[in-house]
Amino acid sequence: MHRPLALLIEYDGTHYAGWQRQPNVRTVQGVVERAVLETFGVPLQIFGSGRTDSGVHARGQVAHLRVEDGHSIPTDKVALALNTHLPADIRIRAAEEVDEDFHARYNANWREYSYTISDEHSVFYERYSWCPKLPYDHALLAASAAVFIGEHDFTTFSKLRAENRSYVCNVMNCHVDEIESGSLLRIRANRFVYSMVRSIVGTMMDVALSRKSLDEVRSALNAQDRSGCSQLAPPQGLCLTTVHYTNELFHRFHPVHL
Amino acid sequence: MHRPLALLIEYDGTHYAGWQRQPNVRTVQGVVERAVLETFGVPLQIFGSGRTDSGVHARGQVAHLRVEDGHSIPTDKVALALNTHLPADIRIRAAEEVDEDFHARYNANWREYSYTISDEHSVFYERYSWCPKLPYDHALLAASAAVFIGEHDFTTFSKLRAENRSYVCNVMNCHVDEIESGSLLRIRANRFVYSMVRSIVGTMMDVALSRKSLDEVRSALNAQDRSGCSQLAPPQGLCLTTVHYTNELFHRFHPVHL
Repeated sequence: MHRPLALLIEYDGTHYAGWQRQPNVRTVQGVVERAVLETFGVPLQIFGSGRTDSGVHARGQVAHLRVEDGHSIPTDKVALALNTHLPADIRIRAAEEVDEDFHARYNANWREYSYTISDEHSVFYERYSWCPKLPYDHALLAASAAVFIGEHDFTTFSKLRAENRSYVCNVMNCHVDEIESGSLLRIRANRFVYSMVRSIVGTMMDVALSRKSLDEVRSALNAQDRSGCSQLAPPQGLCLTTVHYTNELFHRFHPVHL
Repeated sequence: MHRPLALLIEYDGTHYAGWQRQPNVRTVQGVVERAVLETFGVPLQIFGSGRTDSGVHARGQVAHLRVEDGHSIPTDKVALALNTHLPADIRIRAAEEVDEDFHARYNANWREYSYTISDEHSVFYERYSWCPKLPYDHALLAASAAVFIGEHDFTTFSKLRAENRSYVCNVMNCHVDEIESGSLLRIRANRFVYSMVRSIVGTMMDVALSRKSLDEVRSALNAQDRSGCSQLAPPQGLCLTTVHYTNELFHRFHPVHL
């Protein structure tokens, strides 16, 4: 009897319609499941920690699967075996055995995303960052990040979806670093509702462009009304960097730096 | 009468067969010249500071052109006008007027290239760096860089080409920094012969893998014999970062950091 496997997956989301399997569309889950079929010889579902939108990247997506009656492959060879069946823009960074009741989505303690903003339009940055057309105020951008820290109802910063029973998320950290090419936001929360990071970044940018005050953003958050949200920041700046579990799963790949 | 224009050009070389115009092949020069035709309404040659190989990138390629009887476009609008006719992986960063006798190739004082090596295979690094299969010694890699500094005949580290009358180059600096993801080489010289940086990096990596000693590399350099060169490092790690001119051309884009 095989133990379930957890996979640590990175992908360049440029050419994918997001994580979730869909008919007739190229998605990350769909492509990884095809590689799983070719590797283990049986069709198997993989269960991700969460979805990412079209064009969004990941350094640390986690998914699990149960290989019941497929080929037996030593755990330390699984990543290599899967990678031979994957295109260059998806890579399994590691595979580890997990407990029988492990679930990549329900067992995650927190997720962390990064959002990269480049101050210069450059062919080397546009694939992985947002290059705003107007110059923005770094200090205002950094100041606006603190508004979102804490446990809040994020209805204002979520697209409505039937599956979202609750919009309450505990944002454990949200801060902006100045980097050589621009600004890097990191945001960590126990859970994220749909389009939350891109909604937050779009609103932060309106503050940094002096279109909104910090007080207006605070009021919008409290109002729990989507009309108080600015335009979504584009997907290519967003990257799922870490999904954290209480056990030691993949910890050597994810130094906790906040 | 128009003054000649110099263009500062960056490109992601992944999908190009190098800089130089060739029939029936997509090259950077060819694509920029098509944009020049569409922008100025007349076919015009552009003259680059030098060639880059297939798959090699540039942050700071420089080329000049003479617009004699085309549309007159204010100099500060030329970059924007050309960019509307260019694909997303080529961008004109700036355009400046230059003296009547300016030549992008012959007036350059020095060129600088970077070469990026990533210690981890990652979908985010493979497009812009070399990910060697074996672990290498950082300190040996850094030590080997110094061998190449100074004025030498680089026959050993050049592919033979009829046009190369001389293989003597003055390497003003060559050093390796450790960066978060691996190693970054910067090399500056008055001129480079064909395939020189990739030949040097391939040989440095053999030192870092303990396949060659520093003395063997010194002897190979002095022997002026191509058989002493290791395998070429792959093109995607290489980037033409700066072409330097004695006038103030594009200096605000190229902080001199060595």
